[in-house]
Amino acid sequence: MIVITTKNELVQKISEIKNDNKTIGFVPTMGFLHDGHVKLLEEARKANDFVVLSIFVNPLQFGPNEDFDSYPRNARKDEEIARLAGVDFIFTPSVLEMYPKKPTYTVTVGSRVDVLCGRSREGHFDGVATVLTKLFNLIEPNRAYFGMKDAQQVAVVDGLITEFNYPIDLVTVPTVREEDGLAKSSRNVYLSEIERSQAIVIYKSLVMAKQKINQGMRDKEEIKSFISSLISNESDGIIDYVEILSYPELDEIEIMNGKIILAIAVKFTKARLIDNITFEVE
Amino acid sequence: MIVITTKNELVQKISEIKNDNKTIGFVPTMGFLHDGHVKLLEEARKANDFVVLSIFVNPLQFGPNEDFDSYPRNARKDEEIARLAGVDFIFTPSVLEMYPKKPTYTVTVGSRVDVLCGRSREGHFDGVATVLTKLFNLIEPNRAYFGMKDAQQVAVVDGLITEFNYPIDLVTVPTVREEDGLAKSSRNVYLSEIERSQAIVIYKSLVMAKQKINQGMRDKEEIKSFISSLISNESDGIIDYVEILSYPELDEIEIMNGKIILAIAVKFTKARLIDNITFEVE
Repeated sequence: MIVITTKNELVQKISEIKNDNKTIGFVPTMGFLHDGHVKLLEEARKANDFVVLSIFVNPLQFGPNEDFDSYPRNARKDEEIARLAGVDFIFTPSVLEMYPKKPTYTVTVGSRVDVLCGRSREGHFDGVATVLTKLFNLIEPNRAYFGMKDAQQVAVVDGLITEFNYPIDLVTVPTVREEDGLAKSSRNVYLSEIERSQAIVIYKSLVMAKQKINQGMRDKEEIKSFISSLISNESDGIIDYVEILSYPELDEIEIMNGKIILAIAVKFTKARLIDNITFEVE
Repeated sequence: MIVITTKNELVQKISEIKNDNKTIGFVPTMGFLHDGHVKLLEEARKANDFVVLSIFVNPLQFGPNEDFDSYPRNARKDEEIARLAGVDFIFTPSVLEMYPKKPTYTVTVGSRVDVLCGRSREGHFDGVATVLTKLFNLIEPNRAYFGMKDAQQVAVVDGLITEFNYPIDLVTVPTVREEDGLAKSSRNVYLSEIERSQAIVIYKSLVMAKQKINQGMRDKEEIKSFISSLISNESDGIIDYVEILSYPELDEIEIMNGKIILAIAVKFTKARLIDNITFEVE
């Protein structure tokens, strides 16, 4: 495994791989790797000749009041995890390497962003799309791997790849869960013991709502209140949003059919948790 | 020579070329080819295994009051010219093929655009950068060719390639001129006989201003008035702008050194002509 910090060295390696007609699987992350990332790396390892992991806490996707400086970092542990997962190259550039000067070319995302978490994070997905554009052009992956935990990010990347004609296969990997169903997240450690036991209601409510829909429930508001009531009854969490949208377009829907997403954000004392499921309604 | 109208067919061909480790030279145009374009194609032919010419009148780079609908088109003649120049693939998609729906992912250019022609064409270079992003991703060229006639466009493409880390060499080709020095342009036919004879003063004024600078003249305003007076004295053209900027940054300069551009736009009765020269000041 080689750790690369400069664009020049990366481009050199990528060029060698391309000349040999080998395939590249790319897993972009902000580091502080957990089981969800490992799953992405494992999938990339299975399907590609080379696996490139990027670790870059991208300032462009943090708002002025967000936690760019305090975002958790642990380069040494990340390297260990990456090595075990069979990564070939870690690309971990400095901010100055990625943005030698204030960026003046940016990608603006005009769809899929004014809902779910994007509603309260103006410009966040522009920052995501811009850094991915820069990384895609450097790494030229055949496949890029994203976890369904952040379904809105997956939707935005899907749009980026489609509208900008990137010759990249987007591979999505199901959310990795604890045994009781709670979605794995670095933030779960911030839950109190009692909140941790309550938090299982989030995924449970999604699964039960899906059952209701499969049994014929079609009224969006009825489904949303079913989810909200369940969460309120079985936890002290405060609901940030419960949304039902088309997927991956993330459009408001009148009639429920085709692929949809049920998505939830719930605030506990020190952690805001998100979860979602996507499925076809017939 | 193969004429391609769909992204799918293009991606298929590009993929074959890439698998053979052959190089691609790309000449993006809006068609209605003239000697300037031919020069680009010739340069691409010399340096690459395959030459891809795109012909696409891009609605995204036209303002609401600009001439998208009346922009001149001549597909048959373009094909003849391309064949003679040794083009391998013409990519000439419909608007619907390039924009199956209203574009929601766009590139925003925040530098190099509020000067020269960009000053009066808000959003123009965002449209250029967006369509080039889409074309670069489809065609994956090793080299892309642009004429210095539109020096601001070259500067914007240079920024796009640099900031977005495209693994593409930008090749610029000097402005092709008539024997008397007038820059070749589709619009020259709109000049009256007398305007056509007067129009030589545009390039002449640039050459003479460069001489003055080489002889030690350094006062920007003095050089600009030298150019303006010459054009006003020797033609009926109305000066739109005379600008002296750093190149390719297109920043205002206080002290003249390094690479600069002298650029002019002059309005005649039925044609607005632009010209420029770039050079190092020592």
